[in-house]
Amino acid sequence: MRIKDILFSEQPPANASIRGWVRTKRDAKGFAFLEVNDGSCLKNLQVILEESLAGFETLKNINTGASVMIEGNLVESPGKGQKWELRATSITLIGEADAETFPLQKKRHSDEFLRTIAHLRPRTNKFGAMFRIRSESAFAVHQFFHEGGFYYVHTPIITGSDCEGAGQMFRVTTLPTAFVPPQGEAAFEQDFFGKEASLTVSGQLEAEAYACSLGRVYTFGPTFRAENSNTPRHAAEFWMIEPEVAFADLTDNMVLAETMVKFMTAHIMENCADDLELFAKFVDETLMSRLNNLVNSDFARLPYQDAIDILKASGKTFEFPVDFGTDLQTEHERYLCETHFKKPVIVYDYPKTIKPFYMRLNDDNRTVRAMDVLVPGVGELIGGSQREERLDILQQRMADVKMDTAPYWWYFDLRRFGSVPHSGFGMGFERFLMMITGVSNIRDVIPFARTPKNLEF
Amino acid sequence: MRIKDILFSEQPPANASIRGWVRTKRDAKGFAFLEVNDGSCLKNLQVILEESLAGFETLKNINTGASVMIEGNLVESPGKGQKWELRATSITLIGEADAETFPLQKKRHSDEFLRTIAHLRPRTNKFGAMFRIRSESAFAVHQFFHEGGFYYVHTPIITGSDCEGAGQMFRVTTLPTAFVPPQGEAAFEQDFFGKEASLTVSGQLEAEAYACSLGRVYTFGPTFRAENSNTPRHAAEFWMIEPEVAFADLTDNMVLAETMVKFMTAHIMENCADDLELFAKFVDETLMSRLNNLVNSDFARLPYQDAIDILKASGKTFEFPVDFGTDLQTEHERYLCETHFKKPVIVYDYPKTIKPFYMRLNDDNRTVRAMDVLVPGVGELIGGSQREERLDILQQRMADVKMDTAPYWWYFDLRRFGSVPHSGFGMGFERFLMMITGVSNIRDVIPFARTPKNLEF
Repeated sequence: MRIKDILFSEQPPANASIRGWVRTKRDAKGFAFLEVNDGSCLKNLQVILEESLAGFETLKNINTGASVMIEGNLVESPGKGQKWELRATSITLIGEADAETFPLQKKRHSDEFLRTIAHLRPRTNKFGAMFRIRSESAFAVHQFFHEGGFYYVHTPIITGSDCEGAGQMFRVTTLPTAFVPPQGEAAFEQDFFGKEASLTVSGQLEAEAYACSLGRVYTFGPTFRAENSNTPRHAAEFWMIEPEVAFADLTDNMVLAETMVKFMTAHIMENCADDLELFAKFVDETLMSRLNNLVNSDFARLPYQDAIDILKASGKTFEFPVDFGTDLQTEHERYLCETHFKKPVIVYDYPKTIKPFYMRLNDDNRTVRAMDVLVPGVGELIGGSQREERLDILQQRMADVKMDTAPYWWYFDLRRFGSVPHSGFGMGFERFLMMITGVSNIRDVIPFARTPKNLEF
Repeated sequence: MRIKDILFSEQPPANASIRGWVRTKRDAKGFAFLEVNDGSCLKNLQVILEESLAGFETLKNINTGASVMIEGNLVESPGKGQKWELRATSITLIGEADAETFPLQKKRHSDEFLRTIAHLRPRTNKFGAMFRIRSESAFAVHQFFHEGGFYYVHTPIITGSDCEGAGQMFRVTTLPTAFVPPQGEAAFEQDFFGKEASLTVSGQLEAEAYACSLGRVYTFGPTFRAENSNTPRHAAEFWMIEPEVAFADLTDNMVLAETMVKFMTAHIMENCADDLELFAKFVDETLMSRLNNLVNSDFARLPYQDAIDILKASGKTFEFPVDFGTDLQTEHERYLCETHFKKPVIVYDYPKTIKPFYMRLNDDNRTVRAMDVLVPGVGELIGGSQREERLDILQQRMADVKMDTAPYWWYFDLRRFGSVPHSGFGMGFERFLMMITGVSNIRDVIPFARTPKNLEF
C-alpha cells in the first residue's frame, strides 16, 4: 500500500504493509518511532515499534536512508499532523544505509550540495515535492490540450536546419573526433545524415505543418541551446510546450496562453497542495498570493509601444535603457508586471527588427504580431506570434535578413497550398516550474540538469 | 466549430461556421458539393452550395487542397455515411491550392511518395488517422501511469555515459567540424560539456534513481540509435516509454507490462474507432481480430529455455538456428506468438550472456531476470527486467564484461543506500503504433522520420 493512499484515506484497512525509506528514527523507553517515506507524497507515515516486537533488534541497523518493509495495524494517530499511524507487527530491513557515509543525514543541505547528488536529492522533502509537481504539471499540459481537442505531435529532435535562429545549436554527428572533413559541400558527406545535423531549438515549424492539417496541435518535448552562459535561468537542455492553431489570430493566441497558464496553475494548487505548501513556507513566502493573483486576474494586454512609454515614464533607472526597437530585458518585464500592473501582462506588436522572420507583419510595416506573456517573479514565461501566412511577405522577410531559404521549401509549401492564418507560442516548461514553486535556479527544477561543463549522471 | 463536434453531435446548432481544407469538389446541376476536412476527425463534412449563393463564382478557384471558411445551416443528411450536412449561406476562399501543382490530388499515393512530402501527408486520410492515433496513444500512456500513481520523469537526452551498451550513439558537440582535438584525456576539454557527450539510448538508469525515491515512475521521451541500418523497423530517433518501480519483482513487471499494453490498446479501440477502421480496411485485414485477441487473452508466460525447446521441436527451418545462448530473432518471436501460442507471449529468464549488466542474476548463475513481451504481427514489443539491486554482484557483472565503472558511481549509490528490489521495462512507442495500426514501416508512424542520409524537414 502506498503511504499516500493511507494518509489520505478516510478509513484505511485495519492492517497494512508498507515499503519505503526511513527518514528518521527516534528511540523512547520501550518503543521506537520511525518516519517512513515511500515517495508517493510529502508526508511520512509514523511507525511505532514496541520493544517486544520480534525482530526489534534489527532496528540497530536501520538508520536514516535504509529501506524497510513493515506490516502492522493502522490506528488513529494521537499526534498532530497526521491522521493515521502504523503499529508494527513485523519489520524487515531491505537495504541498509550507513550512518557515516549516507549523504542525506537529517539536516539542512544547500541546493548546491544537493545538485552534486542529483540521484539522491529526490529523497529529500524539497526535491521530492519539486519532482511530483513537475510530473503533475506535465500531466496538466496533456490534459489541458486533450480536453481542448488538440493533437500531440512529436516534432523531430535532430534537425537539418536552424529553424528559428533562436540560439546556438549543438551539432550531432557520428564522425570520429579525429576526422578532418573535406571542405565545402562535401564536409558532411560521410556523416550519418549526409549533411550537417543539429539538436532542435524549437518544434514550431514542424508543428505548423501539423496545425495546417490537423487543426490544433501541440508539441511537448526537449529543446536545446548551446549557449555558453552559466546563469540561474539557462540550461542546455529543457522541455518546451508549443501549441499551434490553424485559423487562430493573435487575440485567440493570447486567450489560449492565458487560459493554459491559469489551468496549469489551478491544477497544481488543487492537486499538489501539500507539496506546494513546502515552497510557500521555505522558498518563497509570497508564492500563494502570487499564484492566487495569477489565477484570478485578467492579464493586462498592451502594445509594445505602450510598454516602452510606461517604462520611459517610470522614472526608474534601468541597467538597460529602453526605446522603440530595444528588446525588453527581465528588469523591464518584471517592472511592468510586478510594479506597474501588479499582475501578468501580455505585450504584443513588437518591432520586426527584434523578432524572427516567421511572425506576421503588421500593416504599419514596422511591427509584427508577436506577443510575450510576462508574469510576476519570473518575467517572460511565454513567447508567441501569429505566423506570416502570406508567401511573398514571408520570403521578403527572409531575404531582408539574408537567410538561406533552401531548407524551407516545405515551409513555403504550407503557404502555397491552402494557406491559413495560424498562431502559436512556446512556453519553457522549467520557466513555468520556477514560477509555480518560487525556485530561482533552473538546475533545481530539472532532474539531471545539463549546463556548460556539467554532464554528470 | 470543429467538424468532429458537428458530426458526432446528437443535435448540433442550426447554424454553423466551419473552417478547413477542401478534399473534393463536385459540380451538379444548379449545385456544387464540397467535402471539407479540418483535421479534427477522419470524416469530411459535406457542404452543399446553391448556384444562387452570393460568391458562388469563387468556387472556380476552389480546388482540392484549398482552405475555406463556410457558414451555413446544418441539416440532416439524406446521403449515407454522415448524419449532418451543411447548406452554405456564405463561402470564403482563404488560401488557394493550384490544381496543377498541389501534390495531393484525389488519387492513391504510395507511402514512399508521401514520405517525400511529410509536411503535407497528414492532410491525407491515412496519415491524418495515423497521427491522431499517435496523439491519443501518447495520452493513454500518461493517463495509464497517472491513474496508477506513477510520476513522470524527464530523464536527460544528452548523456555522458553509454548507459546500456544498447546501441551506437550519436555524439553531441559544439566544436567546429575542422577542429582536430588533442589526443587522450584532453580530447573534449574545449567541448561544451568538457567531456564526450552523446544522445541517450535509454532513460532507464536515471529512472531507477527516481524509482528509488518516488516509488513508481516512468519516462516517455525521445531516444536515439546511430546504427547505419536501413530497415523498415529502425529509425535513428524514436520515442520510448520506460516505467520503473521500486519494490517490484519480475512478476509484478510482467503484470504491469501486460496491463499497460491492454489498457492502451483498448483505449485506442474505444477512442479512435473511425481512424482504426481505416487501417483495418486498407492496411491489415486481420487487425481487429489481432487487437481483440490481445485485449482478451492472458499473455502466455514461459522461461527462455522452454521457448528454445518449443522452437527446436517445431520442425520449422529458421534462417537463424536457435540454441540456449542465442538471441531470439523476429522469426522466432513471431513463431512463438503467431503460430505456437496464437496470442502475446512473455519470455523470461534469458541467458546472462545475451543481456545487459543491470539485469538481476538468478541463483542458477547463468540466467537473468529478463523478460520480453512478444506480440503477433510485430514480435518484440517490450523488453524489461528486474534490476540487480546487490552491489557486489552488479559490480562483478560489469567487471566480467570489462566495463569502465567510473561513470556509474551514482548508480552504485542506489545500491549502497537503502537499496531495494526494483523492476522496469521499455516499450518503443513506434513499435506499439505499428502493432495497433498494422503499418509495417516505422517511417510511416513518425511525423518526420530520421534515418541514415535522411534529415529533411
